[in-house]
Amino acid sequence: MTPPRSGAFAAARHALGPVDEWARAETAVHHDRLAKPRGSLGRLETLAAQLAAVAGRVPPPVPRPAAVAVFAADHGVHAQGVTPWPQQVTSAMVTALSTGGAAVNVLARQMGASLIVVDVGVATELVPAPGLVQRKVRTGTADLSMEAAMSLDEAGAALDVGAEVAKQLVGGGARCLVTGEMGIANTTSSAALVAAFTGRRASEVTGRGTGIDDETLARKVRAVERGLARTDLDGEALPVLASVGGLEIAALAGFIVGGAAARVPVVVDGLITDAALLVAAAVEPDVLGYCVAGHLSVEPGARAALDHLGLEPVLDLGLRLGEGTGACLALPVLEAAAKIAGEMATLDEAGVSGGG
Amino acid sequence: MTPPRSGAFAAARHALGPVDEWARAETAVHHDRLAKPRGSLGRLETLAAQLAAVAGRVPPPVPRPAAVAVFAADHGVHAQGVTPWPQQVTSAMVTALSTGGAAVNVLARQMGASLIVVDVGVATELVPAPGLVQRKVRTGTADLSMEAAMSLDEAGAALDVGAEVAKQLVGGGARCLVTGEMGIANTTSSAALVAAFTGRRASEVTGRGTGIDDETLARKVRAVERGLARTDLDGEALPVLASVGGLEIAALAGFIVGGAAARVPVVVDGLITDAALLVAAAVEPDVLGYCVAGHLSVEPGARAALDHLGLEPVLDLGLRLGEGTGACLALPVLEAAAKIAGEMATLDEAGVSGGG
Repeated sequence: MTPPRSGAFAAARHALGPVDEWARAETAVHHDRLAKPRGSLGRLETLAAQLAAVAGRVPPPVPRPAAVAVFAADHGVHAQGVTPWPQQVTSAMVTALSTGGAAVNVLARQMGASLIVVDVGVATELVPAPGLVQRKVRTGTADLSMEAAMSLDEAGAALDVGAEVAKQLVGGGARCLVTGEMGIANTTSSAALVAAFTGRRASEVTGRGTGIDDETLARKVRAVERGLARTDLDGEALPVLASVGGLEIAALAGFIVGGAAARVPVVVDGLITDAALLVAAAVEPDVLGYCVAGHLSVEPGARAALDHLGLEPVLDLGLRLGEGTGACLALPVLEAAAKIAGEMATLDEAGVSGGG
Repeated sequence: MTPPRSGAFAAARHALGPVDEWARAETAVHHDRLAKPRGSLGRLETLAAQLAAVAGRVPPPVPRPAAVAVFAADHGVHAQGVTPWPQQVTSAMVTALSTGGAAVNVLARQMGASLIVVDVGVATELVPAPGLVQRKVRTGTADLSMEAAMSLDEAGAALDVGAEVAKQLVGGGARCLVTGEMGIANTTSSAALVAAFTGRRASEVTGRGTGIDDETLARKVRAVERGLARTDLDGEALPVLASVGGLEIAALAGFIVGGAAARVPVVVDGLITDAALLVAAAVEPDVLGYCVAGHLSVEPGARAALDHLGLEPVLDLGLRLGEGTGACLALPVLEAAAKIAGEMATLDEAGVSGGG
């Protein structure tokens, strides 16, 4: 029942190239001419340099409008009692996301960003709704603590969906992509991926997700450990993804590669999308130059993933909701970085000389 | 030559009351009904509760439009060689601020905020410009390392200007006030105030400002130490302000009290406005409930001031420019907090039950 492969992920990998390091260096030179002390805008300066490197233009274009894609799927490991939320919450929240009532809808509206929800693996059939894209690969993964979560072919189909969605959104005018997700039990799958790609122990990177007690956490750690024990951790990245990943995580990895191939910045959110970036960067290290870590989730696996990738999060607001909320909140900082580089007067224009 | 006192600061102190703790508690109850795990929006939830407490409404109103007021003045301590920038840079930057070319102008435009520049003590006469409010109290302070920076009456006049500006901006429709400043050498004065109000040593809270070498830093620390040695550190707050403060810092303290008296949130920026808040909170502790620390400046005195006040900054982006830039960048987070509380679906509406 796996849908036929579109080849979008392979095409994105083929199109992908490194960011423009000349544009990054030129942006630093440009910043030093602006009416401010050198380096005094800190992260805004390094973000502007990254945006310039992504676009190959100095000063960088304002990364607006942004497009949020929320990939949704269910997880067979839910059967192990890793969360108190019933699996049906995934489809209920997909409905809330399609009708504008979830947290990330509020933030996307505030930021002037579009939002779509892409079903790549929700366990139940969903009622069509505006903003809901139906691209189900299968009705949820298998239980990763017992067997491979999905086949390599299913993972590939989900990677294709993600890459296609990225290409369509950029083709439709998006100048920045925002990663979002919804899937009850997907912090379990993400913790397994983080452990697999960073070499950390399951107990170090498995957290309380949406809020679980000690007993549930212990079950969650054991599920992650069993999944890892079944998996060839020295092998290639995509079999690891198929073994312990999720359909929305595979789609997100494809989405990240697709966005990078289209030369737009991709803002990653919390643990789940950080895990997807680990997969994407293992396959194509060049994607990292296009990615901004929007925020630091309180989930321990998020810090482990970002440290491994060498990314510094823009925000640290104690969020652990997911959906893309932390990534949306970082958008004004990215816009500010581009606008500062593009709109400020120079020291000469301001008639200022001297200083450090 | 001190302008006649308007009494605006005294009137603001009289009007000031504590924030509404009932509204804060009700907001927490409201958050637990929304379609998300409890507490999963971290700082957005506590900020929304504070905004509700400020306004006395649940959910809180969106703090928009914001108004940025940049208070500008010169500092006699400049003569001690505490910065490589010539004193004339203050007036050049006031011109840049009045004509829209400074960093904070770019950010205010992005955030849909108005911006005015208020001259309370620039050393030279300024050419009238749109957006420049001329309320000079004196032409710069005296050298705080040698004598009192200003008289108590001059400090009072600057406090009045700040309180008046706050009242006028809120009367004109502003629903959030943003503190900004411009004044070459004002990190020296601010470091002295931070040391005076937190009890830290000058060497602990004096930083490199816009970027200075070791020798200049040593001169700066000595200037702060001499100013503190002249000052009665066990006395009242306003004489300390007059002794080692700045005219823009006094105006900012008045502005903060004025905003709190008008029951709108006041977003403080970096070291200089943190120092103004130390003064304001020493005089009227109730102001703290209305204030949000927009960001953490890299200046060591900023962390010392915020720790002393018990405030946690919203952003930490490695900024050390001032002007109000870090406070402007925090505005979208405040707006997001209010909008999440006001626009999200409830768990019941989303048909979600169970969970933590």
